[in-house]
Amino acid sequence: MTGQTLTLFSEFLGTMFLILLGNGVVAAVSLKKSKAEGAGWVAITMGWGAAVTLAVYIAGFMGPAHLNPAVTLGFAITGDLAWGMVIPFILAQVAGAILGSVLVWLTYLAHYKETTDPGAILGTFATGAEIRDNTSNVMSEAIGTFVLVFALLAFGQNVFTEGLNPLVVGVLILSIGLSLGGSTGYAINPARDLGPRIAHQILPLANKGDSKWEYAWVPIVAPMLGAVAAALLYLVIV
Amino acid sequence: MTGQTLTLFSEFLGTMFLILLGNGVVAAVSLKKSKAEGAGWVAITMGWGAAVTLAVYIAGFMGPAHLNPAVTLGFAITGDLAWGMVIPFILAQVAGAILGSVLVWLTYLAHYKETTDPGAILGTFATGAEIRDNTSNVMSEAIGTFVLVFALLAFGQNVFTEGLNPLVVGVLILSIGLSLGGSTGYAINPARDLGPRIAHQILPLANKGDSKWEYAWVPIVAPMLGAVAAALLYLVIV
Amino acid sequence: MTGQTLTLFSEFLGTMFLILLGNGVVAAVSLKKSKAEGAGWVAITMGWGAAVTLAVYIAGFMGPAHLNPAVTLGFAITGDLAWGMVIPFILAQVAGAILGSVLVWLTYLAHYKETTDPGAILGTFATGAEIRDNTSNVMSEAIGTFVLVFALLAFGQNVFTEGLNPLVVGVLILSIGLSLGGSTGYAINPARDLGPRIAHQILPLANKGDSKWEYAWVPIVAPMLGAVAAALLYLVIV
Amino acid sequence: MTGQTLTLFSEFLGTMFLILLGNGVVAAVSLKKSKAEGAGWVAITMGWGAAVTLAVYIAGFMGPAHLNPAVTLGFAITGDLAWGMVIPFILAQVAGAILGSVLVWLTYLAHYKETTDPGAILGTFATGAEIRDNTSNVMSEAIGTFVLVFALLAFGQNVFTEGLNPLVVGVLILSIGLSLGGSTGYAINPARDLGPRIAHQILPLANKGDSKWEYAWVPIVAPMLGAVAAALLYLVIV
Repeated sequence: MTGQTLTLFSEFLGTMFLILLGNGVVAAVSLKKSKAEGAGWVAITMGWGAAVTLAVYIAGFMGPAHLNPAVTLGFAITGDLAWGMVIPFILAQVAGAILGSVLVWLTYLAHYKETTDPGAILGTFATGAEIRDNTSNVMSEAIGTFVLVFALLAFGQNVFTEGLNPLVVGVLILSIGLSLGGSTGYAINPARDLGPRIAHQILPLANKGDSKWEYAWVPIVAPMLGAVAAALLYLVIV
Repeated sequence: MTGQTLTLFSEFLGTMFLILLGNGVVAAVSLKKSKAEGAGWVAITMGWGAAVTLAVYIAGFMGPAHLNPAVTLGFAITGDLAWGMVIPFILAQVAGAILGSVLVWLTYLAHYKETTDPGAILGTFATGAEIRDNTSNVMSEAIGTFVLVFALLAFGQNVFTEGLNPLVVGVLILSIGLSLGGSTGYAINPARDLGPRIAHQILPLANKGDSKWEYAWVPIVAPMLGAVAAALLYLVIV
Repeated sequence: MTGQTLTLFSEFLGTMFLILLGNGVVAAVSLKKSKAEGAGWVAITMGWGAAVTLAVYIAGFMGPAHLNPAVTLGFAITGDLAWGMVIPFILAQVAGAILGSVLVWLTYLAHYKETTDPGAILGTFATGAEIRDNTSNVMSEAIGTFVLVFALLAFGQNVFTEGLNPLVVGVLILSIGLSLGGSTGYAINPARDLGPRIAHQILPLANKGDSKWEYAWVPIVAPMLGAVAAALLYLVIV
Repeated sequence: MTGQTLTLFSEFLGTMFLILLGNGVVAAVSLKKSKAEGAGWVAITMGWGAAVTLAVYIAGFMGPAHLNPAVTLGFAITGDLAWGMVIPFILAQVAGAILGSVLVWLTYLAHYKETTDPGAILGTFATGAEIRDNTSNVMSEAIGTFVLVFALLAFGQNVFTEGLNPLVVGVLILSIGLSLGGSTGYAINPARDLGPRIAHQILPLANKGDSKWEYAWVPIVAPMLGAVAAALLYLVIV
């Protein structure tokens, strides 16, 4: 593959790996009879941090490895991405996220059958707020994404030795998860929530409950707000 | 921004991110109905380590990224910072720490309302000793800060590949937290304690208790003592 | 040593260290009266990640450090290894894995005597599925190995500063463990399962149960399938 | 300071930091009313890993940073250290270890008073076997130190980018702790056990029990055996 095809495939494949490894750890910790059952929040946040690091290495030799519509929007505002690429990038990311969620399901096939709690099952796909409150939930996702996008822009101003950048991005995701993720489960990425929610809607899961579409706008809108704020602050500084 | 404005803004913004991510993990672990509730000391110390790493990357492309009055004092003693910058740096750090604490509050807005233990709430702002004893508390904070400042000075004698330094600083903070933080909660940074304590005093928190100002001098004075000791030992060696 | 002897010895010695440190952490967490007893899944996955990092450093100054027949197969398909070396590599890996398991036994000699659960003892040698189901088990091991081999091939397209690669490989193993290991215990390496299972069969263990040879084909066949899929996808892209 | 004085001071100061941070995490997890009480084996092994990383950075700009008589012996056998330096190095290491233990005591002064279990107190100084058995204990310490010294020698054959080596050494210590430390608590360093045991004998601790000198030979003799084996294997290979 070459050129724009490769760049879009990079977003697709990278987001697929991101969701396979990211939602994979939620499945590992949440599903019945998993060896990781109950391994807790440290396992989940370490798992997501490592997932993003690896997805960036995998996508990064083929493209810019945004893997996140909020990042794509932020980098378009700062001029790091052509505006015409925003929609294609987002479509590739959401498609990759759907496929990644299907692979999680295949990895834990027998465990999905054993698990009867619909909330636990949905949690291995999409995010949800522990306390449902629009102001608080939007604030939480917007601040988390503000940190994500501003830090990524700041990393662009640092000089990294070859190959170090994705490790630092993993530390960033670990940090956001540990510190800012306790309220809404840190989607901080519209594709990370929307793609798997679509997969949850579609897949023939045994004990599937409601896909909770009424919450789906929060992890789409709030991350975009946070990304815009981060990009604007960055433009003020540099 | 340019010159001295940028340098001071760097201390302000870096300390803001430091406290948002650092106190964020304490809030995540301590507040009611957080997904991280009870995640424990490993989560807290990993969260603070990652917080410092990221704050140094973010502030580090604009300035020296002390983010800590004790570090600023130590580096002034060794001649790495002009004495005239000490007070402006400290003011910027404390102001950033206050704003960082306000952002933690906004991130966990709904959870602060659900939490009724005033001690748990204060713990998401300022530090406190498990056993109140002046000698022991001062010793603990002074030794922790001695390790911090001496290690940072030693790092200055190491040669690091581009971009590695803030990761190593994160390991340092993780280490101090795990090994020396069990007694007083390792402020090891006057701004990290004073700024959030001011925020606690000011913010309209539902179940707010006393801000415990009678302890506030310990995490200001003891870190300064530790920093002076570290800087003097360093000057003897090199 | 030189040439091909050194390369094969590298696979032997590297896999020995891999299994000593990898199965070592399972023994530490599972055996009676160990200080690490019950330390859980985070300890196990961190331990395996670190084990692979170290084994790659140790073997890596003498050879390519595959330490895994599935990796050897994948790299033969992509042309990174001569086909004639595949069988010798695999034999060296399995032999190293057997010796590594013997060393784990010697390290925890007194604890093997105290442990009476045959399942716990077997678990310190070979992997096993929590829910025995051919489709689900094969899927889980194949997807895990697909991620492993594709990521390793992608790393080959990244440029790493000297010495960083094995650390990133450790993050990869940590990630696969946390995210994809909950179902079958992520063998993702035929030698890692077969070698220790042979050791379990042979060693004079006090409370030894069945070596469960009926499961042994899964962690051999499925990783090979995953490796082939990863190599083919990689060839399509580059 | 310059020349040989600086080199010996480096071993002294580095081992002091090693024990302050290493035994510090054991104190944090074991002593009463510590915020880290009960944080468990992951905290202890991460704390020791980070402790060694930092001690190597701190000592490393002044000398070779062995910080361990077994490493010193191994490197003398391979010709990396003059034999005449072995005894001075070991004396500096043991003296540093004693002072490091005194600093742990000062850091947790109030908590040592609150802790009444003599075994828990001794555990914050010296190591001990969970199951007392000479063969098993010697095997465990010898194998752990064999891995340590052989890996350090292998690292010397790798090329590391500037500043990365001590991080990798930290991963090594984390790995040995997680995987091989469950039986005897991985002294793998005669100075790490002897120095603090001397401090335990001397310090005016409130609830001090026996210093268990009858075990003290194991973490001295067995690591030396492991180091010799590692150095000899290394000489056969290169």
